[in-house]
Amino acid sequence: MRADVQPGDVLSALPEHPPAMPGGEDEWGRIFDDVRSIIFPGLTHWQSPGFFGYFPANGSWPAVLGDLLSTGLGVQGMLWQTGPAMTELETRMLDWMARLSGLPERFLSSGPGGGVIQGTASEATLVAMVAARHRLRVGQPQIDPRTLVAYTSTQAHSSVLKATRIAGIEHLRLVPTDARHALDPDALGRLIERDVANGLVPFYCCATAGTTGSGAFDPIDQIANIRNSMAPHAWLHVDAAWAGSAAVCPEHRGFLEGVEQADSYCTNPHKWLLTNFDCDLFYVADRAMLIDALSVTPEYLRNAASDSGAVIDYRDWQAPLGRRFRALKLWFVVRHYGRAGLQAHIRQHIAWARWFEDRVLSDPRFELAAPRSLSLVCLRLAGDRDADTRALLEAANASGQVLLTHTSLPDAQGRDRYTIRVAIGGTGNTFQSVQQLWGVLASLADADTGVR
Amino acid sequence: MRADVQPGDVLSALPEHPPAMPGGEDEWGRIFDDVRSIIFPGLTHWQSPGFFGYFPANGSWPAVLGDLLSTGLGVQGMLWQTGPAMTELETRMLDWMARLSGLPERFLSSGPGGGVIQGTASEATLVAMVAARHRLRVGQPQIDPRTLVAYTSTQAHSSVLKATRIAGIEHLRLVPTDARHALDPDALGRLIERDVANGLVPFYCCATAGTTGSGAFDPIDQIANIRNSMAPHAWLHVDAAWAGSAAVCPEHRGFLEGVEQADSYCTNPHKWLLTNFDCDLFYVADRAMLIDALSVTPEYLRNAASDSGAVIDYRDWQAPLGRRFRALKLWFVVRHYGRAGLQAHIRQHIAWARWFEDRVLSDPRFELAAPRSLSLVCLRLAGDRDADTRALLEAANASGQVLLTHTSLPDAQGRDRYTIRVAIGGTGNTFQSVQQLWGVLASLADADTGVR
Repeated sequence: MRADVQPGDVLSALPEHPPAMPGGEDEWGRIFDDVRSIIFPGLTHWQSPGFFGYFPANGSWPAVLGDLLSTGLGVQGMLWQTGPAMTELETRMLDWMARLSGLPERFLSSGPGGGVIQGTASEATLVAMVAARHRLRVGQPQIDPRTLVAYTSTQAHSSVLKATRIAGIEHLRLVPTDARHALDPDALGRLIERDVANGLVPFYCCATAGTTGSGAFDPIDQIANIRNSMAPHAWLHVDAAWAGSAAVCPEHRGFLEGVEQADSYCTNPHKWLLTNFDCDLFYVADRAMLIDALSVTPEYLRNAASDSGAVIDYRDWQAPLGRRFRALKLWFVVRHYGRAGLQAHIRQHIAWARWFEDRVLSDPRFELAAPRSLSLVCLRLAGDRDADTRALLEAANASGQVLLTHTSLPDAQGRDRYTIRVAIGGTGNTFQSVQQLWGVLASLADADTGVR
Repeated sequence: MRADVQPGDVLSALPEHPPAMPGGEDEWGRIFDDVRSIIFPGLTHWQSPGFFGYFPANGSWPAVLGDLLSTGLGVQGMLWQTGPAMTELETRMLDWMARLSGLPERFLSSGPGGGVIQGTASEATLVAMVAARHRLRVGQPQIDPRTLVAYTSTQAHSSVLKATRIAGIEHLRLVPTDARHALDPDALGRLIERDVANGLVPFYCCATAGTTGSGAFDPIDQIANIRNSMAPHAWLHVDAAWAGSAAVCPEHRGFLEGVEQADSYCTNPHKWLLTNFDCDLFYVADRAMLIDALSVTPEYLRNAASDSGAVIDYRDWQAPLGRRFRALKLWFVVRHYGRAGLQAHIRQHIAWARWFEDRVLSDPRFELAAPRSLSLVCLRLAGDRDADTRALLEAANASGQVLLTHTSLPDAQGRDRYTIRVAIGGTGNTFQSVQQLWGVLASLADADTGVR
């Protein structure tokens, strides 16, 4: 499952120079031979039943068909004019997904807000930050950009830090987390208070709904309240890249409490909703501010439809200019599975994760490193045994039957502890593969650690 | 060819609410019916033989196959570890393309430089700008970011301005152009001199090799010399998004003179080299500076291969974290067509553009608005007749036989003039469709303008 290659193996199997002549009629046989003999063994197989690493990269045949149609059509939808159906299908799909996920009205296209497909949540985090800065500077044009401060938790995704690097934001506060690894709102309040006292200007806060490390949910409502009272001009972005897919099930929407106060929200169907990478749904409450931050119109992009103001030009909602027809794959997925099918997809994974959690809880050799979150289970060997936990993960991956990745989570004493993440949710995962995973971990714990 | 729909037509043909239940076995018939009846008529058909708008979005069946395989594999290659063959095939393809295009050694992966696939040239422009700022601030940590100045020409792509908005750069100088619409190096020198005298700090210059408006080539060598003497710490990026594909032909590489002094370079095979969108090749001379600017490593992304320093993690070369397996389609294209096939693709389009240019030059009703550049011909009706030229373009598009777009180019008196762009280079274009285009324009000029 994990690629069985050393650095440079694949590179050295590929000719150093490109071919001078067309391949001819036998070339495709050789190409597919090379795919099988060079590429396949060199890949880590994300769609394998035994893949439980990172967060999953979902796929499904309806999505593959949609992507194939998109590639074949070869339409570049930077403007409404360059592909009206691409723009309008995307608008409709974003509205569909908002309704399926119980998102507040403010994110629907029928009001001042609306949604767009970004490539990744990293891009959503970035453009939200750029819009946040723009909004602040529209209100306070003379503000020194060096005084702007962004906030997120210590458990937030690395893309928030990366976005500050790209946007040129000098201050990012990583707010401490509570025992459940969720942002501590009191700590956020204290940091904002200190910054404001020092003449700095809070302008952006990214709350995470389902952290990468442990699936923790920052308390959006409490964060919003603090923002409202202490830094009312700051933009609140909610990153639900992974967990947002679970909101298609009404019983799993609790983490959205307060999202109606957020300025933007994103979630990735490519992680857990049967839609191939890349597909991030990014919603804003006030599209005018986003568009105003990113719109640049040279003569060669002007056209009557855009000038009329009656259409959406999605290039103004994202960092790149060009864009693929990604709404097709989402349309195919929703029509094929329907609300009920998407819910069943999510619910089965959560049920398997519950089963896995029960195994961990009932086996004294293991302990949970964090409360199970939806379909993510974080565990370690019981006691102070980081090196053994690491060896266990490495042995499990070396078995070739499963692929797991790790993180670091603080324990009750605040010490960072090596943690195995079991991220169920791949389209290829089955109950059998989850059982097999438990079997691998349990038997390795027997063999390698001597614990009975 | 151009979508025959009004704003809202497609949206209103799509249900407001997503389906509750799975589509069932008849759904796919309905889906494809809807694709044909709602989507197809609502698209502007970029792959049509008569499409000559913007710059082309190339496609080919080898690229479609490669993209399909990428989608089916569903591998997410953020790290070497998460798809070693994806990373190493990409490295090899970037080297192949550099060799095919006669790029300098400094951009090959065997030295301190190297290449990566970005989604679009806009992203390349942005990350180059972020790396440029980082390099400057490594050398001068105390510099006030508000003093940084970027430079590009008035004819440069809008993505340069957009990148400054995203990166938070306050000053962008749009350098005047010469009679051929290329950046005037003397004017650049004067602007830099004035800015430095005012305490500002030049940090980034984007030279365009093949502008969007008219295909003009900024003099990279002269720009580099000015940079070297007046602002040696500034980063020189070369945006050859469209024209770079022509460099597969040795006789069309003249525009690369001086590129060996550039810090970065990009070109889009998705524009003119038979590779479906998105595929931008971005090269840097010093990969360490780019990686240092963008690398953020949380625990959950750490792994032995990355820690060893022996591998490339392409997430550190781009704004997003996740990435698709885009090298596959490029590999398939190069193996199928070979150097000779790619050259033939470029040369036939340039030959057709020469034929079209001859028609314009031999017809007194028309005039060139700029010298033909490779396969791009810019024209207008002779004399001071902007409104007629605009009406001509609109009538041509209304014919349904062709699709053209426009720009604005200054004439010899410096007045902005409405200009029709004829961008040959679509995979679907044929000599017949180019002849048809001339027939449409010539007959409309007869009918609408009364000129004989």
